[in-house]
Amino acid sequence: MLRMGVIGYGYWGPNIVRNFNTANGSAVTCICDMSAQTLKNKVSKNFPNIKTTTSADELIADTGVDAVAIVTPVFTHFEIAKKVLEAGKSIFVEKPFTYTVAEAEKLVNLAEKKNLKIMVDHTFLYTGAVKKIRQLIDDGTLGNLYYFDSMRVNLGLFQHDVNVVWDLAPHDISIMDYVIGEKPQAVVATGSGHFGRNLEDIAYLTFYYPKNIIAHINVNWLSPVKVRTTLIGGEKKMLVWNDLEPDEKIKVYDKGVQVKTKEGQYNLLVNYRSGDMWAPKVEQTEALKIMAEKFVDYVENGGSVINDGIAGLNNVKMLEAANKSLANKGKMTAI
Amino acid sequence: MLRMGVIGYGYWGPNIVRNFNTANGSAVTCICDMSAQTLKNKVSKNFPNIKTTTSADELIADTGVDAVAIVTPVFTHFEIAKKVLEAGKSIFVEKPFTYTVAEAEKLVNLAEKKNLKIMVDHTFLYTGAVKKIRQLIDDGTLGNLYYFDSMRVNLGLFQHDVNVVWDLAPHDISIMDYVIGEKPQAVVATGSGHFGRNLEDIAYLTFYYPKNIIAHINVNWLSPVKVRTTLIGGEKKMLVWNDLEPDEKIKVYDKGVQVKTKEGQYNLLVNYRSGDMWAPKVEQTEALKIMAEKFVDYVENGGSVINDGIAGLNNVKMLEAANKSLANKGKMTAI
Amino acid sequence: MLRMGVIGYGYWGPNIVRNFNTANGSAVTCICDMSAQTLKNKVSKNFPNIKTTTSADELIADTGVDAVAIVTPVFTHFEIAKKVLEAGKSIFVEKPFTYTVAEAEKLVNLAEKKNLKIMVDHTFLYTGAVKKIRQLIDDGTLGNLYYFDSMRVNLGLFQHDVNVVWDLAPHDISIMDYVIGEKPQAVVATGSGHFGRNLEDIAYLTFYYPKNIIAHINVNWLSPVKVRTTLIGGEKKMLVWNDLEPDEKIKVYDKGVQVKTKEGQYNLLVNYRSGDMWAPKVEQTEALKIMAEKFVDYVENGGSVINDGIAGLNNVKMLEAANKSLANKGKMTAI
Amino acid sequence: MLRMGVIGYGYWGPNIVRNFNTANGSAVTCICDMSAQTLKNKVSKNFPNIKTTTSADELIADTGVDAVAIVTPVFTHFEIAKKVLEAGKSIFVEKPFTYTVAEAEKLVNLAEKKNLKIMVDHTFLYTGAVKKIRQLIDDGTLGNLYYFDSMRVNLGLFQHDVNVVWDLAPHDISIMDYVIGEKPQAVVATGSGHFGRNLEDIAYLTFYYPKNIIAHINVNWLSPVKVRTTLIGGEKKMLVWNDLEPDEKIKVYDKGVQVKTKEGQYNLLVNYRSGDMWAPKVEQTEALKIMAEKFVDYVENGGSVINDGIAGLNNVKMLEAANKSLANKGKMTAI
Repeated sequence: MLRMGVIGYGYWGPNIVRNFNTANGSAVTCICDMSAQTLKNKVSKNFPNIKTTTSADELIADTGVDAVAIVTPVFTHFEIAKKVLEAGKSIFVEKPFTYTVAEAEKLVNLAEKKNLKIMVDHTFLYTGAVKKIRQLIDDGTLGNLYYFDSMRVNLGLFQHDVNVVWDLAPHDISIMDYVIGEKPQAVVATGSGHFGRNLEDIAYLTFYYPKNIIAHINVNWLSPVKVRTTLIGGEKKMLVWNDLEPDEKIKVYDKGVQVKTKEGQYNLLVNYRSGDMWAPKVEQTEALKIMAEKFVDYVENGGSVINDGIAGLNNVKMLEAANKSLANKGKMTAI
Repeated sequence: MLRMGVIGYGYWGPNIVRNFNTANGSAVTCICDMSAQTLKNKVSKNFPNIKTTTSADELIADTGVDAVAIVTPVFTHFEIAKKVLEAGKSIFVEKPFTYTVAEAEKLVNLAEKKNLKIMVDHTFLYTGAVKKIRQLIDDGTLGNLYYFDSMRVNLGLFQHDVNVVWDLAPHDISIMDYVIGEKPQAVVATGSGHFGRNLEDIAYLTFYYPKNIIAHINVNWLSPVKVRTTLIGGEKKMLVWNDLEPDEKIKVYDKGVQVKTKEGQYNLLVNYRSGDMWAPKVEQTEALKIMAEKFVDYVENGGSVINDGIAGLNNVKMLEAANKSLANKGKMTAI
Repeated sequence: MLRMGVIGYGYWGPNIVRNFNTANGSAVTCICDMSAQTLKNKVSKNFPNIKTTTSADELIADTGVDAVAIVTPVFTHFEIAKKVLEAGKSIFVEKPFTYTVAEAEKLVNLAEKKNLKIMVDHTFLYTGAVKKIRQLIDDGTLGNLYYFDSMRVNLGLFQHDVNVVWDLAPHDISIMDYVIGEKPQAVVATGSGHFGRNLEDIAYLTFYYPKNIIAHINVNWLSPVKVRTTLIGGEKKMLVWNDLEPDEKIKVYDKGVQVKTKEGQYNLLVNYRSGDMWAPKVEQTEALKIMAEKFVDYVENGGSVINDGIAGLNNVKMLEAANKSLANKGKMTAI
Repeated sequence: MLRMGVIGYGYWGPNIVRNFNTANGSAVTCICDMSAQTLKNKVSKNFPNIKTTTSADELIADTGVDAVAIVTPVFTHFEIAKKVLEAGKSIFVEKPFTYTVAEAEKLVNLAEKKNLKIMVDHTFLYTGAVKKIRQLIDDGTLGNLYYFDSMRVNLGLFQHDVNVVWDLAPHDISIMDYVIGEKPQAVVATGSGHFGRNLEDIAYLTFYYPKNIIAHINVNWLSPVKVRTTLIGGEKKMLVWNDLEPDEKIKVYDKGVQVKTKEGQYNLLVNYRSGDMWAPKVEQTEALKIMAEKFVDYVENGGSVINDGIAGLNNVKMLEAANKSLANKGKMTAI
């Protein structure tokens, strides 16, 4: 039984607690939050057996805590994570992993040195939809990839300390990183903020990959409608993932195009292929629970996970580069 | 009765002929196409009374032709348009107006000098949907604009001589230009081509406007599904235009956000407003026919039109800047 | 070349004329309509080479007419059809075939005696969607059928002489009849009219088939939205046909249920199966044109067609029984 | 504080417990289920403070229980409810209220005699959507009603003891009853069962109302897709309620038709009106919680509720009549 301490009980914390508490092999034994009020009203009432504290240090030092989930604002991740690792405990960290590449690298090195584990909460990687997409790419169903185009827009929730890129894009970047299986070389990002603060509420990111693969991410806190749609085009097949569909989340289209150009010829020879559409059944288990159990296994038995510290570091590298490009009005920025 | 000559009878030519032929006040009297076969099989059979020729010069010189519609590939627009204007006849030109800003400027100047009219086929400006959007912005319903975000993707049709920006983006740019009513200052464009030719089949354009308005255009010839959706966010209301909806093309959302930041305060004060949705009835008349009749009126009675040579020139300015940025991997390019 | 005469140039007539005129093997040579105005403004202007007349007798007697399409109100079908057959010419008749079973039987007998052909305009049978559904049933993909449930509702068009059953249900009945491949034994129909006339604008039809197959048809002229959706449930698979979808009209679901009841057992043993969804590509050719060419072939070469006089007669039998049940507030009526 | 006992902890019981436990003014103090296993694993683990028992009699007699929620199979409702009322406690009963009209009448009389309260779990009446529909009818927005047409289909869940009418139609009937505000006079029901038991898994109900209002309910356990859609047509406006839409559940259409018939005139004079569509904001609070608090208020302070014993009795009257008609293959049955 892995005894988890959880630091931060705001918007996402309750989900982390619920899942580590019901996962096989783990239980939450201590919860820390800055607000004594929150601890009293929301934690103690529902979980009388879980210890509470307003001191992260106390939780970290607690001998009844084997590993720690960090569910605090991104600015605080590094300091807390460092202390936990130095205390000899593995960490589960909310996305984005850290606010700078330098911080992420230090944590990865520290964990390695102390033989501890890091897992970053890239939840989507454990959904049935992303697993299925990865499989369709891995087994060659889509063929060579042309593009990845993701739209994640809705009204709010505005964050006080980070822009929309730090808030929403870690999801798309982690998915893109996982399913494409290549590393992007550079990013161009544009965007705009509208409320007199220097934080973008709308942003557009283009990642350049080798072999002409292009990835685009559209994130927006000011949309009247919620959209969670990703198009992925391959040489053999193309797919649309609509995460808001309750049942048919992924549709695979037997569509394609073959272009031949003959020198000196005025007209292109283009063949279009348009066949059946197919919506494979997608596993519906709650991703967060599967991930919690994977964390337990990772900490206790080692091996590897797809969302380890390195994955978190790569994610932050792309976020940092995207924000640098954004600040420079679309200047291409190497990753 | 304005007697129209039409040069080019390929993909779009038949629509132009049909509409100028049934519009009040005009009739097509002569059609030119490079292919004698096309003229025989497609024109003469259906329109026995319309003259045909494979020579553009002959059509231009025809005394039975008062004005000329140019529906040929963009590379040929300038040469043909110049000859027509020099022959003292007004022109209706397929979008995009020309392939370079320099060409567009010469045509605008020439028409002005000779007191002739230019209309560019920005068809969407005459649809009920675009008219309604413009009205909702003009009358203050949306309030100050935050963004314009348009997606125009589908499978094909690949063009032999131009990239997807020249093919699809003129639509979005003409609409954006018309409804925003401001001039963008710069553009950042990214994209990719996938068939061994130097022509992008996917592109993403971000236009920077004054007052923090941002516009984004996503055009793609490699999508398995057709999407024609535009989001427009304003301070007071936000709208979604889905041009593929048969009935409720425009949905206006009484949604918004108000952000207050107090110095020294950790938490943002954000108010979200979420009220009714409203789909105003949108006029369904065929835009091309309305535009044809507007052209007749413009040539015969003067006045002004929203898609004159200047509008065409502005469109080409934005296209040229976007393509320059695209060639420079997203370098911000002034317009 | 089969020379067609067309009687009736109202709402549907122009489609019949266009398709028989462009079909391989036929041409329209004469059109009859009660309104000289219509003939002048709508026929002569567009088809200067087609004869016109306000006299059906004249058209029927015309030696330049080989076969006749009857596109008039249903009340007039019998009289006109009888005259045409007596004149020794085959007929293509708009649906519903006739207004009574007795009339339909007389026409079928007359045609047989004179060795002439009857085709009834059950257009949907020639669409790619219905062909595909029939194939999925024929080849055992769906397994034994459980039900057929069709909804065909929209605003208007009100007919002056018939209720919504005569207007809309012939479509559903012809499709149901063709794809189920069994004969229903009885019908229960309910409905209501709302404008002070004795004609229902809303109706619900339930057909009882052998082997517990049940078919239901919901037709309504007073719906604010257009719906054209049919559910078909089988033992092995189930399908949804949404005719308003531009691309994925048919979706086949690998879903099912297996119910076991053990005597003395409180709980049912029910297994639910839920697998992939699959949208087979559906042929997009215009059904009316295919049907016109089939009519030519049928008249010239014989053989059999799925929408012959017998099919038309069966359709009228079901309509007549449904209307009888409707008049008796749902009394079960044998067919 | 109203201390609730809950009898039955199967599919729906946990929702009842959760809501009465968190509602203002009530708390669950005792839970009864036939299965000691269920009580141990599902109740005691999560609610250590709630008493459990396998004896309904024990719960009913418990002095720590003020009122009782009955969440058992419909066949058992009457016996349990009778005992509770006789013990002097008010009841909250799962829908359908009872399995026969006679049972319902006895309970209503008994409660009246003992001055106790009955509330039946017609949850939908407390949703924002149904409240809004009722309001739009009450305030005259829709005008005189023409029809109510509801479709409630999905795969499963098969019940072991009742057909699909008893399982799904109580929802539609309670909604129809509440929003139409008239009493239907008769019902015609058709349907079919497919698994060798005498229980229909598909059924179609037509209710005849005074003033030509017609209501239709389509319930089906064998549909591959889930549909929860109701059309309501009125003289002035028409609406579509799609309960599966997360945001725009209700769409009100400014559409209508006006029919004039002049004697001796061949053509109808029909005017169609087609204007804006409007989706009013619908309250999103959980209906079950609102209802639980209403029950507390009803028991403690009296007054009236829309889902009292009389409403439950009316619901059962319509269910019983529908099932009688169903057994008689659509025979019109008075209510």
